[in-house]
Amino acid sequence: MTDTRIVGLTIVPSTAHVLTDAELAFSPASGRITYLGPVRGPMGDGDIDGTGRVAIPGLVNAHTHSAMTLLRGYSDDVPLQTWLTHVRAFELRLTASDIRAGLRLALAEMLRSGTTGFVDMFQWDSSLLALVSESGLRVSAAPAVFGYDAVAFPMADPTPGADILTRTATLAAEFAGDPLIGLAYGLHAPYTCPPEMIADVASRRADDGIGVHIHLSETRFEVEESLRVHGVTPIRLVADLGLLDGRTHVAHAVHPLDGDIELLCRPGVTVSHNPVSNLKLGAGIAPVPSYLAAGVRLGLGTDSVASNNTLDMFEEIKTGTLVQRGLAADPSVIAGAQLLHMATAGGAPAVDPSLSGVLAVGEPADLVLLDVTGTTALPFTDPGSFLVYAARGTDVIDVFIAGRQVVADGVVTTIDEAAARADVAERSLRIRRELSSG
Amino acid sequence: MTDTRIVGLTIVPSTAHVLTDAELAFSPASGRITYLGPVRGPMGDGDIDGTGRVAIPGLVNAHTHSAMTLLRGYSDDVPLQTWLTHVRAFELRLTASDIRAGLRLALAEMLRSGTTGFVDMFQWDSSLLALVSESGLRVSAAPAVFGYDAVAFPMADPTPGADILTRTATLAAEFAGDPLIGLAYGLHAPYTCPPEMIADVASRRADDGIGVHIHLSETRFEVEESLRVHGVTPIRLVADLGLLDGRTHVAHAVHPLDGDIELLCRPGVTVSHNPVSNLKLGAGIAPVPSYLAAGVRLGLGTDSVASNNTLDMFEEIKTGTLVQRGLAADPSVIAGAQLLHMATAGGAPAVDPSLSGVLAVGEPADLVLLDVTGTTALPFTDPGSFLVYAARGTDVIDVFIAGRQVVADGVVTTIDEAAARADVAERSLRIRRELSSG
Repeated sequence: MTDTRIVGLTIVPSTAHVLTDAELAFSPASGRITYLGPVRGPMGDGDIDGTGRVAIPGLVNAHTHSAMTLLRGYSDDVPLQTWLTHVRAFELRLTASDIRAGLRLALAEMLRSGTTGFVDMFQWDSSLLALVSESGLRVSAAPAVFGYDAVAFPMADPTPGADILTRTATLAAEFAGDPLIGLAYGLHAPYTCPPEMIADVASRRADDGIGVHIHLSETRFEVEESLRVHGVTPIRLVADLGLLDGRTHVAHAVHPLDGDIELLCRPGVTVSHNPVSNLKLGAGIAPVPSYLAAGVRLGLGTDSVASNNTLDMFEEIKTGTLVQRGLAADPSVIAGAQLLHMATAGGAPAVDPSLSGVLAVGEPADLVLLDVTGTTALPFTDPGSFLVYAARGTDVIDVFIAGRQVVADGVVTTIDEAAARADVAERSLRIRRELSSG
Repeated sequence: MTDTRIVGLTIVPSTAHVLTDAELAFSPASGRITYLGPVRGPMGDGDIDGTGRVAIPGLVNAHTHSAMTLLRGYSDDVPLQTWLTHVRAFELRLTASDIRAGLRLALAEMLRSGTTGFVDMFQWDSSLLALVSESGLRVSAAPAVFGYDAVAFPMADPTPGADILTRTATLAAEFAGDPLIGLAYGLHAPYTCPPEMIADVASRRADDGIGVHIHLSETRFEVEESLRVHGVTPIRLVADLGLLDGRTHVAHAVHPLDGDIELLCRPGVTVSHNPVSNLKLGAGIAPVPSYLAAGVRLGLGTDSVASNNTLDMFEEIKTGTLVQRGLAADPSVIAGAQLLHMATAGGAPAVDPSLSGVLAVGEPADLVLLDVTGTTALPFTDPGSFLVYAARGTDVIDVFIAGRQVVADGVVTTIDEAAARADVAERSLRIRRELSSG
């Protein structure tokens, strides 16, 4: 099987450099990039015309609950506690097939907008992981637990947290041979999971090497409560319980206090910054420039569409850049390229520690081609400027993951998106009707 | 000529209500809405199928320098003073035909993303206003002055400020019969235009009724300098010079001090909030909830693409909503509907005081149809939620202004967008080459 060549395109292999009038080739057999550089010759049969396109590493959504597409626009303009009540009431009515439908539409939405890998905490089982694998996306999936006895999704899956932890290890073994699928222990948060459970998960990880995904310090209220109840911040609490001694992925970290940033710099710890969700829910604004200066390994995430309301990573990149500048009243406090890095190489290790999130020979061909002939891309003189400040998910034309084409000319090839839309719309209306009729 | 009927659509006539499975009709002859309500019967020849569409009032971009599309992505990640130097050096090289090309592409971009009217300060002459009129957009155009002797665009137009003021009145008379075109005196700012010029313009307006457009209190530095030099804030300064006693449109107002908000509530005063530009340049974050509580008449603007980098009003709506919530750490501090109102009815009077910015019988048929069958619109249960948190300019399908169809099935009908793109790309590259070769 010969290599696939993409010829005549602009390539942004990482935020450090740009290649123009270039060629990128990959082996469909190995799924890896085999060439990156000047065009080596005229196009042959089966090669792809890259003119008017820019190639970037696949985007990584470093924190989401993707199956929640049924909740899009369900509760937008209410205080956080009311929002939590609304969302929880909806989740209690989700059946297993609702979750499957929600995930299927989310996979289509992510692929269509250039996301090639995601880090997710929700209800996860063998069938849902198989659906992700069929779609071609990469995932680090964390089955959520809210305590040993708690049942997160009673209609969909009446399994208590204690058994979910065991199942997480079983699923990890089941999918060990699938390079697209990874598992993580999904500790919801220190205010739902008791300290002994957090220590238990740290100990399991020491034995089996499975990573952890946890929400920490999302709101000021959470930090204050932790100080009141435990005498330390949520980040310090889980560190004291051993959770930051190995691979742990932290969502949010909006409100670090003294010493927390140092803890987040520990080897193996990655953090997902989720600016749109944090703004929309009024959680606040994470100190990203301080994190970057300290060396925290930051990815970028959308969180669920219930607090966003899209899975478009380009929106996250632009909003994340803008908000830091406005807050500091200083445009030099952060560069757009830093957010683009977070959305690619920054988040990649949270999906799979072997991923670099850059385009280079030998790396997996996880790549996104955007159309740069549209009005908002012109004049196309600085690809980085376009990618950060003007690009949208709708500019994505082609997507490849491990060399497999999953979006072709704007159409998702691995999922019937129209069927997924109709299914979600119908199921979401059913639940909304149930909820409004009490 | 019979009415045009759009049948079976969802209508958001204003942020106060929603009609579903509805019909909207307008008279192509008068350009006004003739019916809004339940579907009156089956579709006839020439009627438009509105199923899967939502109709909203045309979006109003309440502050921009639209012709600056040639500068898109020219200077993104630098401190404000450096940015100003970069932009000014570029502007000094703009010829009259460069400005025309830049405006043409901006008109296409605005139409394509659902903007039906805009408030603009730049170099304006008879030929540019004719171009806007041909495009079908509504404009309040303010020819910019930076002082009596200053020449703003020496290559394009060597006319000093004093003569630009006179020309503004001449242009207003010339276009008095064109309902799409309005003029305003374009005072750049109190730190470029001397007090006597501001008082002069206030006095001219008292005679001729032509409105004013001015930048005020964009940065903290500007406010501090005004206090140092004049002993009062920029807003107080122009109020003392009589500028807030009639129709004045204020751009930015990011940093009001005591008493300023009251001055901005005066009859005739409208304010454009420009969140993306204010964030990107590090100007800061305007106190929008305080403005709304006080009754300031707020519109929403993109500013130029040099500080944005698109003219997509949907981005402005979402970012404007999010940033207030994050800053206050309280999602109830502002509702998305308030930003949607600003982007329509709020800004409309700044384009033309006779415009309401709502869809109602007797009002001009300035309306935008968006596709609501896409993934990010689903489940489509709350049109307001979609419009604020998920919609993008690329969801716009059809646009009508005064009953004239200016976008049909996603294609701008009044401008050759492909030609406009090629023209801007070529001219922008020429200037960038000139600048980089010193």
